[in-house]
Amino acid sequence: MIAEVLKDRGADFLIMYGSSSNANFYYATKFKTYDALTYIAGIDGSDILIVPEMEKRRAERESRVKEIVSLGDLGYAERVKEFGDPRKAYLEVVVNVLKEGRCRKLLIPEETPTFISFEMMKHFEVEVIRNPFTRLRKVKSSSEIEKIRDVSRAILNVFRQVVENFNFETCDDLRRTVEIKLFSTGYLAENTICSSGKRSADPHDTGGGRIEDHVVIDVFPRSMEHLYYSDFTRTIFVRENKELEDMYSAVVIAQEEAIRMIRDGVDAKDVHERVKDVLNSYGYKTGGGEGFIHTTGHGIGLEVHEEPRIGDVSVTLKKGMVVTVEPGLYYRNIGGVRVEDTIVVKRGECEILTPFEKFLKL
Amino acid sequence: MIAEVLKDRGADFLIMYGSSSNANFYYATKFKTYDALTYIAGIDGSDILIVPEMEKRRAERESRVKEIVSLGDLGYAERVKEFGDPRKAYLEVVVNVLKEGRCRKLLIPEETPTFISFEMMKHFEVEVIRNPFTRLRKVKSSSEIEKIRDVSRAILNVFRQVVENFNFETCDDLRRTVEIKLFSTGYLAENTICSSGKRSADPHDTGGGRIEDHVVIDVFPRSMEHLYYSDFTRTIFVRENKELEDMYSAVVIAQEEAIRMIRDGVDAKDVHERVKDVLNSYGYKTGGGEGFIHTTGHGIGLEVHEEPRIGDVSVTLKKGMVVTVEPGLYYRNIGGVRVEDTIVVKRGECEILTPFEKFLKL
Repeated sequence: MIAEVLKDRGADFLIMYGSSSNANFYYATKFKTYDALTYIAGIDGSDILIVPEMEKRRAERESRVKEIVSLGDLGYAERVKEFGDPRKAYLEVVVNVLKEGRCRKLLIPEETPTFISFEMMKHFEVEVIRNPFTRLRKVKSSSEIEKIRDVSRAILNVFRQVVENFNFETCDDLRRTVEIKLFSTGYLAENTICSSGKRSADPHDTGGGRIEDHVVIDVFPRSMEHLYYSDFTRTIFVRENKELEDMYSAVVIAQEEAIRMIRDGVDAKDVHERVKDVLNSYGYKTGGGEGFIHTTGHGIGLEVHEEPRIGDVSVTLKKGMVVTVEPGLYYRNIGGVRVEDTIVVKRGECEILTPFEKFLKL
Repeated sequence: MIAEVLKDRGADFLIMYGSSSNANFYYATKFKTYDALTYIAGIDGSDILIVPEMEKRRAERESRVKEIVSLGDLGYAERVKEFGDPRKAYLEVVVNVLKEGRCRKLLIPEETPTFISFEMMKHFEVEVIRNPFTRLRKVKSSSEIEKIRDVSRAILNVFRQVVENFNFETCDDLRRTVEIKLFSTGYLAENTICSSGKRSADPHDTGGGRIEDHVVIDVFPRSMEHLYYSDFTRTIFVRENKELEDMYSAVVIAQEEAIRMIRDGVDAKDVHERVKDVLNSYGYKTGGGEGFIHTTGHGIGLEVHEEPRIGDVSVTLKKGMVVTVEPGLYYRNIGGVRVEDTIVVKRGECEILTPFEKFLKL
């Protein structure tokens, strides 16, 4: 796929510099690394990962890159001695790999650190492009879907335990319990939203304080094993609150309507419009930072938020995309509610990876 | 401090683009953000953080930046409509902030994404520099030391529990228990090394399988609250193994010698040399990827590994630096041992933030 991108742009190589905290880098290399490394893909379908000596065997074992070369193989230590500057030595070694591959034109993803780009410009014709892996990552393989399904199952397991033994006084208690339970089974959830009362009117507030009539739980863990995310939200009612319950009913209806619409070939913008229409039809207006103030959803995979977005911009949804569907309503004097599932786009009806009851009155 | 850097280089502003996963960005802004934002510091000591509308109030509350402006304040939405390209709109808005500040020359840290640097070059004289915050972060304030002390205490609490109830069969059991206990108290440890047998001869291997005669536990959590790290290693013996115990004795002696040496004004290289000499004097040779095959230590703070390094390069240690001291010995046919503490450099004797018994025979 990258070979095609190179061909289209008349380039010989693509370079990426990053660690596995960069989703595109991990997607391309399948190599977990805390330190930033260089990955090079060629127009002939070859690719190379440059690693420290110490990581060579692990990279050969774990990474999906065809050729692993170590800094040792490339004479890095000698260059460090020669220049007295590890950075300069590193760049020289990388430039030499490209020169040996007879590189003339090089593609550089736009997020590449400036010190890499500026050096490459001295030696090659350079074109700065949006990272092609961002686009490739939009449609998931079946093994990627399996990983998101795995995280989804972990969420539901924990959520079921929490709902069945709901004895939390505060939002922080609830958050801590959810996060610790997930962590104990190998999933890292950070910034889990547990928000109640009027604070829940701000969808970005992670919440705090006593649980009042309701609590919005929005949890998006990643597997510490395979690094994929899933994303799930339910609004739980612990006391009667007609205003919030009515809002939540409208949100659930809008969400189910959106989920029914979503399939291969549908425009994400139309889905978002439909959600807005449904909420409007129930009398819930949007404006002045209140109402339905965010998009309907987003792609999810190696990042919590990735392409495609289900919002105001036209994007054709395709079979194999994994997206969230998460309408909400927020009013400062009342509070906020939201429901969210992670789903797989199919030719026909989509598959819900996080099936769980929507109305939870405890 | 940044004003001085700007003055020295005849520049008007420094720009940083990043999220709080970037230690320099978090250090400059004290603002936790998953999304990347722009920070601008001026020669007059002013600074600005550009945030999405939704984050403005939180940024005003939490960040240490003097002026918070939102994309809304800057007419971003109108530019998106005009250009139909959020990226282009964003860059225009940032360029305008700099132009309003009458920027002529701009400093750009070398890790800045290329799309930012290339746009800035069109409008301003640009100088790409090593990030000045990396240098500023080397010497810690007393409040930073307090945070590293806090993580150190958390490690010791968990480690004490683990040692007192040591009933682990496998390295993975031990790792899981340590990480879950830390997580439950608000500290995230990933890739904790629990390594036994011959696998422990590779200091980068996180370990696995049955615990044989000994286990090296190297844990480096960060607080999920304030984001600082600490780092700690002990080698525990569960069965007699004279070879490994002798190696560990030498390592402990070398470490204590190094700790005694470390104070304001000492060259880190001399400390590393001393450690090498001590290990040599006990007959432990280094070569062919065996022996003492890594550096003596590294700075620690908002990153696990940061400046200064205690290795082959001359660096003067200064009061307020926080570093690890972690000699080890590794032989393929025997295994590896290591001991590590996190310490604060002082004018006199340094302070050990992770005081704990070195010889642990269970």
